Amino acid sequence: MHDPGDPGLVPEPASTQVPGGSVLLPNGARVATDPALRPAARWWRRVTEEAFGIDLVPTALPVDAAGPAPHGLTDPAGPAPEGTADVTFVLATGLLTGGYRIEARAAASGSGTGVGGAPGTVRVEAADLAGAHAAAQTLRQLAGPAAFRRASAAYRGAGDAGMVELPAVRIEDHPRFEWRGVLLDVARHFLPKHDVLRFIDLAAAHRLNVLQLHLTDDQGWRVQVHRYPELTRTGAWRRESTVGTWRTGSRDGRPHGGFYAQDDLREIVAYARDRGITVVPEIDVPGHVEAAVAAYPELGTRKDRSGVRTTWGISQDVLDPSEGSLAFFRHVLDEVLDVFDAPWIGLGGDEVPTTLWRESPHIVERARALGLSGPDGAPDVAQLHGWFVARLAQHVSDAGRRAVVWDEAVSPILPRDVIVTSWRGYAQGAAALAAGYDVVMAPEQAVYLDHRAGEHPAEPIPVGFLRTVEDVYSFEPLPASLSADYLGQHASTPQVAGNRQEPGRLLGAQAQVWTEHLDNARRIDYATFPRLAAFAEVAWSPRADREPGSPASKEFLDRLERHHLPRLDAYGVEYRPLGGPHPWQTRPGVEGYPRDLAAETAVGGWAGLGGWREDGGVENLPTDAPGPERASEQTPEDDA
Amino acid sequence: MHDPGDPGLVPEPASTQVPGGSVLLPNGARVATDPALRPAARWWRRVTEEAFGIDLVPTALPVDAAGPAPHGLTDPAGPAPEGTADVTFVLATGLLTGGYRIEARAAASGSGTGVGGAPGTVRVEAADLAGAHAAAQTLRQLAGPAAFRRASAAYRGAGDAGMVELPAVRIEDHPRFEWRGVLLDVARHFLPKHDVLRFIDLAAAHRLNVLQLHLTDDQGWRVQVHRYPELTRTGAWRRESTVGTWRTGSRDGRPHGGFYAQDDLREIVAYARDRGITVVPEIDVPGHVEAAVAAYPELGTRKDRSGVRTTWGISQDVLDPSEGSLAFFRHVLDEVLDVFDAPWIGLGGDEVPTTLWRESPHIVERARALGLSGPDGAPDVAQLHGWFVARLAQHVSDAGRRAVVWDEAVSPILPRDVIVTSWRGYAQGAAALAAGYDVVMAPEQAVYLDHRAGEHPAEPIPVGFLRTVEDVYSFEPLPASLSADYLGQHASTPQVAGNRQEPGRLLGAQAQVWTEHLDNARRIDYATFPRLAAFAEVAWSPRADREPGSPASKEFLDRLERHHLPRLDAYGVEYRPLGGPHPWQTRPGVEGYPRDLAAETAVGGWAGLGGWREDGGVENLPTDAPGPERASEQTPEDDA
Repeated sequence: MHDPGDPGLVPEPASTQVPGGSVLLPNGARVATDPALRPAARWWRRVTEEAFGIDLVPTALPVDAAGPAPHGLTDPAGPAPEGTADVTFVLATGLLTGGYRIEARAAASGSGTGVGGAPGTVRVEAADLAGAHAAAQTLRQLAGPAAFRRASAAYRGAGDAGMVELPAVRIEDHPRFEWRGVLLDVARHFLPKHDVLRFIDLAAAHRLNVLQLHLTDDQGWRVQVHRYPELTRTGAWRRESTVGTWRTGSRDGRPHGGFYAQDDLREIVAYARDRGITVVPEIDVPGHVEAAVAAYPELGTRKDRSGVRTTWGISQDVLDPSEGSLAFFRHVLDEVLDVFDAPWIGLGGDEVPTTLWRESPHIVERARALGLSGPDGAPDVAQLHGWFVARLAQHVSDAGRRAVVWDEAVSPILPRDVIVTSWRGYAQGAAALAAGYDVVMAPEQAVYLDHRAGEHPAEPIPVGFLRTVEDVYSFEPLPASLSADYLGQHASTPQVAGNRQEPGRLLGAQAQVWTEHLDNARRIDYATFPRLAAFAEVAWSPRADREPGSPASKEFLDRLERHHLPRLDAYGVEYRPLGGPHPWQTRPGVEGYPRDLAAETAVGGWAGLGGWREDGGVENLPTDAPGPERASEQTPEDDA
Repeated sequence: MHDPGDPGLVPEPASTQVPGGSVLLPNGARVATDPALRPAARWWRRVTEEAFGIDLVPTALPVDAAGPAPHGLTDPAGPAPEGTADVTFVLATGLLTGGYRIEARAAASGSGTGVGGAPGTVRVEAADLAGAHAAAQTLRQLAGPAAFRRASAAYRGAGDAGMVELPAVRIEDHPRFEWRGVLLDVARHFLPKHDVLRFIDLAAAHRLNVLQLHLTDDQGWRVQVHRYPELTRTGAWRRESTVGTWRTGSRDGRPHGGFYAQDDLREIVAYARDRGITVVPEIDVPGHVEAAVAAYPELGTRKDRSGVRTTWGISQDVLDPSEGSLAFFRHVLDEVLDVFDAPWIGLGGDEVPTTLWRESPHIVERARALGLSGPDGAPDVAQLHGWFVARLAQHVSDAGRRAVVWDEAVSPILPRDVIVTSWRGYAQGAAALAAGYDVVMAPEQAVYLDHRAGEHPAEPIPVGFLRTVEDVYSFEPLPASLSADYLGQHASTPQVAGNRQEPGRLLGAQAQVWTEHLDNARRIDYATFPRLAAFAEVAWSPRADREPGSPASKEFLDRLERHHLPRLDAYGVEYRPLGGPHPWQTRPGVEGYPRDLAAETAVGGWAGLGGWREDGGVENLPTDAPGPERASEQTPEDDA
């Protein structure tokens, strides 16, 4: 049985008081909700009904529910008056965006302060629907690990219903960042819809609010497009996959594929919305397009028909940045815009080798015709990268949405309403902020959850940087020293919409789950958890010193182990045990490609060394520099 | 949009009338339920709320709800009177066990007959909770494919809730068999808890009511046992797995494992119970025990420490039938009996090679000491098989439950309360019936869903008999000719408990999903569906001539394609397309082991040729007999 006196919430709320005692919600408890908050209350009702085997009854909101004076205050120990709900969700003013208050008052408690509510009841005040969703997740955590099950493991006789016990608490809470994201790569390995829904559940359980769905890449095209059926008929599967780093050339000989019908994606979007999560679709251009080119070879620079890519690593086979390609992807985006209602649409824009463009006279000519030239006046095909992304970003903008791009896609002509996701390092994000872009910090040095989580000798397919759960917990989206360099005193100035002269806003942070080496939901569980819990606390909770070994870090690890891992166990998350993998989670003999963070940082600084580099990357660095062979041919998305 | 006028239910109810029109259930619709039926109504409310984005409000049962006279009958076109529920679940007499009636009356309908209910309302009458669960599943099917999603794919503006539309129908329905089972093998490949829950959802959606969970086998032990922690520490994982038939010796080099904590199993049991499904745990003895022997070598005949088995096929390494082994498994069963509340507990008992017993003097001596001797008076170790199972069956019986065993375990000393599952063929089941045992028919010739579903050249890892969806649909649990042979006119006589002199009862049928070649949930989807839908109709619906090509078979295929596959699509089931696998569902280069049903039947008749045979099996048959090499060393559980 969990200890209701010690909630151990993750992420930790801004303020929590536990006056003692508890609230019991029996079968038939009444839940009243402001209509604006209904999806959050409905979700909480449903998971609680399921986990505890009880009925929770939606009821009308008492007339004075929104007022500060609780029912029954004059008779604190008595039952709530007839007609009062046991749980109430109301809108309230005076809360920060996305914030909420919870007061769960013990039945015997006499003093209600702040939020109010009768003894033995729970009152949730939310700034908005997002706040109510966050509050609902906190309520579930308060009910203990059993609340994370889908049926009650405590058997009861027929007619003997369960009971929900919550600790008496007063919580006041709000998120630090408005974009608390996680990227899920369903392109490298297709994840069936029900597993995506489960991933959404888990993201929501950690009060994350953005899921970036990486829907297309060299190795697979996962979104149905009615106008271009070959995208899924040909592009949704590959003959086999590389096992481990591409450097060994090891293949599994097993076809892999799958795609989401548009109604599946609509369901995913609605399911996420019901949990306070916005799904941001990503259609990656003009690189990472081999699957699309396999379906429609005329999109490619080479125009030849090849299969969907079966290896990892950066592909040279990028789009021909033609009017035809632009029109094609505008049509694709039109369907994407119809399916996804998010205000943000991802266009990729990472890792675009220009080698083939340089070798194609018609593309050199196109750069010249478009006036894209270098300082010497000669056509500069490299600028076609930014040009192509900017054109599609404008299309997204014309549709009333904002494009989201990886940091390489920033160029002087990129519309200023585009959101830049900084993955190669921190410096690119800081520079984008200084240039007036809103930025999401997602540096591979810190929050790539496919990177190895430990130095255990049996760590499965160890790639990328060593990122323990403590390391992820120490992530700071914009380190102060860097912030000073790039932003000066304007760093936190609220941004005026329109034609910006001011720095952009730091919207938040995003963890990435790339799946080259995560070939099923179990492997995704292992890589993602519990590190995503650490990330979520960074993204939600007030800023703090969380360096490994700090008091905050130690407290988090203790809270994780005593309170949160039991929740993940109850949910059935196959997370990485803190001590290293279970034997069946290992992948003996499969080579990864570990990188050395300290060494790369020593050379690359805040900007890192990732991504495709025209100069050949770290190969051309002094020989005493860290030397992962041909780092420029890695897939910086997975560093393998 | 689905056509509410043509419900196309699967399994088909005993009687369906569609008078025309439809019932609309809006946001806030009231659901009244007899307390005895609450779990079924709660489940239906929850899935409907989720799929359509509405609140359904549990409300008190009207005083006269159980009576035949509906509210508002005098004003058929008017609204339901204040206080009347929109949907009512009540108990009713005059229905067969597990049966139900549904009357959904169109808002403008004037004539209510039989079940009753006001116009624009839905009235469910159930014989019992099982009937209510079946009715709830039928109600979901009536709402169309969208009801199988976990969120509404039809976006609506804020505050604009959805609406459920049901066709006006009168359904009267009851199951043909009381045991409508499906076996899921989580031993050969561990299936994470959430995937097991999803499998339960799908079984329930087809009105099946028994899930036999095959928890232990040579290749893995999946159930936590507190007293014997090595069972999961050592027995829950293996170093690698065989790919395809064991005959090629191909291995994947990838560790595989996992197990269910007892609370996970309790949750699974409760989740299934909430959907009308009983979970029957199976602990397989005295064969199929290599994982347990790897954990506790003293259990084995050889007493040596070997690893968990990495190949398929029948293992020689069976239990030492000692008092120590008996005590061990009694302790295991005590924990199993505590976790699972099913009236039935599986003990396996299939495929027990006696070779090592014959070679072990202490075991020969044991047979002698127990008085197990052949006609010549010499000790007969083969009888230890039946003896061992009988002893544990008695232990289960002493705990107030009934053991379930595979047909090889029948012996003269097997307690008569044991349920026999007939897998090697039909004859074994018929013989067990004649001997007084209750029987579940599960012949590998008909309802092994891991067997190949088609002759498509790209069929993934084709093993076993060719069983198309039409073949499965033609399954008759006890063919009439055989029934006459074994049962005579007593076949359907209700059985008197206690010391039986009468034939046993044919409880029903069970489909098997063995997972040697189904290494994840996607592969399980492919093998299981849509054939499980065909099986479910056989197990539920009235007996009919369903031979391939018959009118009933054609009608079913049409109904499946037009009405039921869209439901499975909406749910996200990756079923086998009727025309053959998607490219990514193939396994090129992985060898299966197809068997020839006609040839084996020609030799083996109703009894088949499966299972371990002391005589060496089909090897010793005349050479013109069908000759799969060493059929006696196959794993008859998967025939690969």
